[in-house]
Amino acid sequence: MNIFRTDRDYALDLDSQDELAHFRGRFVFAEPDLIYLLGNSLGRLPEDTVDHLQSVIEEEWGRRLIRSWNDGWFDLPERVGSKMASLLGARADEVIMADSTSVNLFKTAMAALQLRPNRRKIVTDDLNFPSDHYILQGACRLAGPAYQLQVVPSPDGLNGSPEGLAEVIDENTALVTLSHTLFKSGYVYDMATITDLAHRAGALMLWDVSHSVGAMPLDLDGCEVDLAVGCSYKYVNGGPGGPAFIYARRDHHDTLSNLVSGWMGQKNPFEFSLGYEPTPGMRRFLTGTPPILSLAAVEAGIDLILEAGIDKVRKKSVRQTEYLIALWENLLAPIGFRLKTPRQPERRGSHITIGHDEGLRIDRYLVEHMQVLTDFRPPDNIRLGIAPLYNSFADINTAITRMRSVVEDGLYLDYKLQTMVVT
Amino acid sequence: MNIFRTDRDYALDLDSQDELAHFRGRFVFAEPDLIYLLGNSLGRLPEDTVDHLQSVIEEEWGRRLIRSWNDGWFDLPERVGSKMASLLGARADEVIMADSTSVNLFKTAMAALQLRPNRRKIVTDDLNFPSDHYILQGACRLAGPAYQLQVVPSPDGLNGSPEGLAEVIDENTALVTLSHTLFKSGYVYDMATITDLAHRAGALMLWDVSHSVGAMPLDLDGCEVDLAVGCSYKYVNGGPGGPAFIYARRDHHDTLSNLVSGWMGQKNPFEFSLGYEPTPGMRRFLTGTPPILSLAAVEAGIDLILEAGIDKVRKKSVRQTEYLIALWENLLAPIGFRLKTPRQPERRGSHITIGHDEGLRIDRYLVEHMQVLTDFRPPDNIRLGIAPLYNSFADINTAITRMRSVVEDGLYLDYKLQTMVVT
Repeated sequence: MNIFRTDRDYALDLDSQDELAHFRGRFVFAEPDLIYLLGNSLGRLPEDTVDHLQSVIEEEWGRRLIRSWNDGWFDLPERVGSKMASLLGARADEVIMADSTSVNLFKTAMAALQLRPNRRKIVTDDLNFPSDHYILQGACRLAGPAYQLQVVPSPDGLNGSPEGLAEVIDENTALVTLSHTLFKSGYVYDMATITDLAHRAGALMLWDVSHSVGAMPLDLDGCEVDLAVGCSYKYVNGGPGGPAFIYARRDHHDTLSNLVSGWMGQKNPFEFSLGYEPTPGMRRFLTGTPPILSLAAVEAGIDLILEAGIDKVRKKSVRQTEYLIALWENLLAPIGFRLKTPRQPERRGSHITIGHDEGLRIDRYLVEHMQVLTDFRPPDNIRLGIAPLYNSFADINTAITRMRSVVEDGLYLDYKLQTMVVT
Repeated sequence: MNIFRTDRDYALDLDSQDELAHFRGRFVFAEPDLIYLLGNSLGRLPEDTVDHLQSVIEEEWGRRLIRSWNDGWFDLPERVGSKMASLLGARADEVIMADSTSVNLFKTAMAALQLRPNRRKIVTDDLNFPSDHYILQGACRLAGPAYQLQVVPSPDGLNGSPEGLAEVIDENTALVTLSHTLFKSGYVYDMATITDLAHRAGALMLWDVSHSVGAMPLDLDGCEVDLAVGCSYKYVNGGPGGPAFIYARRDHHDTLSNLVSGWMGQKNPFEFSLGYEPTPGMRRFLTGTPPILSLAAVEAGIDLILEAGIDKVRKKSVRQTEYLIALWENLLAPIGFRLKTPRQPERRGSHITIGHDEGLRIDRYLVEHMQVLTDFRPPDNIRLGIAPLYNSFADINTAITRMRSVVEDGLYLDYKLQTMVVT
């Protein structure tokens, strides 16, 4: 942006030049005045999803009943997975929709340990999402007392540490697993470099791309990533708790085992034989019967991103986060707000984290009294998620203007804390 | 039934005396002429569920967005679980909705092995649902080479073998796990007796009640069952692939570990600390974020059964299966159909299995040409599920009459096989 102004008219100008602006109309806006900056947590409801779900509920379940399993439900984890693959830089048969991100991380981490039986270490960092830590702790406990989870500290609690990782990834490392975009700061790892780091030590690389997918193109195949997991309910707009996905590079398909082996991953599930035999390909990562209603919602969410084009989504995301950072610099930095997200576009995702000593009270005031939905992450971070499909530049302008007034006018001072927030 | 007749008027008489008959009107009947006997596989869509889901989609997701996590989504696994508990003979805090039945079996089986660390054997039977076998095979593989899954054979491929179980359950048995109602034959184990058998050897008892719940009252607490899992999409009418549940007796709550430990089971998930600490009670069995749309559908399904009363449901189920058996005896037995389900009401669930040398072709003919939806399980079983909330005596009469004509008129003879069926 060559010319920058903090006024609302300038934001409206930017919106008028935005080629994705009309996608805003494809989402439900029940409260038009609400500034929703939590698409990094729970994406908005697409209009198409309403219609699609009505059809799944009333026609597929209500009318066709059990026959819908043959009409498409049985293949739905693969069909939706193949669409998700387009967002991941993966081939259609490398992705399957299954369970939750955490369950999928468990399955893939256990599978990775089996592929590196003589190595005893999993490496991650202290900015990985806590649930990933819990899963890896459980996986190590299950794998046996010799197994260890090594946690590389961030230098500043915000940025990843490629150097720290390079120091500890060694010939005893079975698996390196990280969040691609960090939930707290929005920092984005260089996928190719870190994956290569793991590979040079003979370790496997497993990315959690939950905070990236749908907001930026990914290139799992190009980076020769081994495994990845991620969720569908953030930028993919797949609905609350929508099923997650698993990616495995094609070379691994025949050698990976799912130890949570259930009938949906069985070679011929309708023969009802008692011995488990994995089906070829990614379907072996299925376990039980998938939640069809939630899974159907994900499909409608992906379709909308594919229609817009993920490259255009990323381009707009970068412009919007740049705009937000410029507003921060002009309006917020002078009154005690700190930018926690990298300024280098390649190193940042689609949410911006802004710290303030009174971050929690400011966030709560914005949410409860100013019609701006943001969220808070300890110790002092206010997160502003930009979902390019429905957030406008005007949204960002309004949010920052209100953040400024909450502090400038001392509005948060009497605010009492109480609430709970979910990502 | 003192007086028995095979004609349709008699079926209509029985329907007119049925105090639950009006519940049929509470379900979507998009094809009124379809005889749907697969409520043991995928329950019908309740009318209330349509309205409830519309509200969850448009109001909770569409309007309230992320705020719905605080408004009720976060507690939904417990709230729906507490309702499910009424169907299980459990206390409200002993049941949580989570994941799929197979994933839940994995979690609970691994937890049971941890509680009996010096025992190396899991006991099941060869009529347990195949997915349960696959999960137990995976669990043994993960637990270590010393672990063994011992499979007790059924005497006849239809009935459970309490005697066979008694022979093998010993001081090395950590866990006994069985399907309460067997998917193939509808045989029902005596829960109290088998649980006691396990306990006398010092083993834990884990029931899969998927084919029982919603069709009969259960008494998990009264039988001092340790653990149970089950699904929501059969007689509970919770929708395709709806989330499953886990029961654990209250005494075990503090000592059970979920090794698939995720943030939804963490004590304070919104503190985002890196060390896993399980939350008190059943919530520790959660892992990732639950699929809210599918979970919400389950709640509406349970509510409908609670409104009808599970004792009345069971009473009608027994009458209907008795009626079906009587029709079989008069109309089908003479032309080569065999009854595979126990005649003793206490030993049978709500689906009846009828064998025939040409079972597969007969089943397919009924489904594709006679508007009667049944399913087939190898080697020769046609299953007829009775869902008392919406199946009428007239449904049963029509189905049996048509089954008879398929054989009597040789209709199935030219039928070519092709299809796939899902339970």
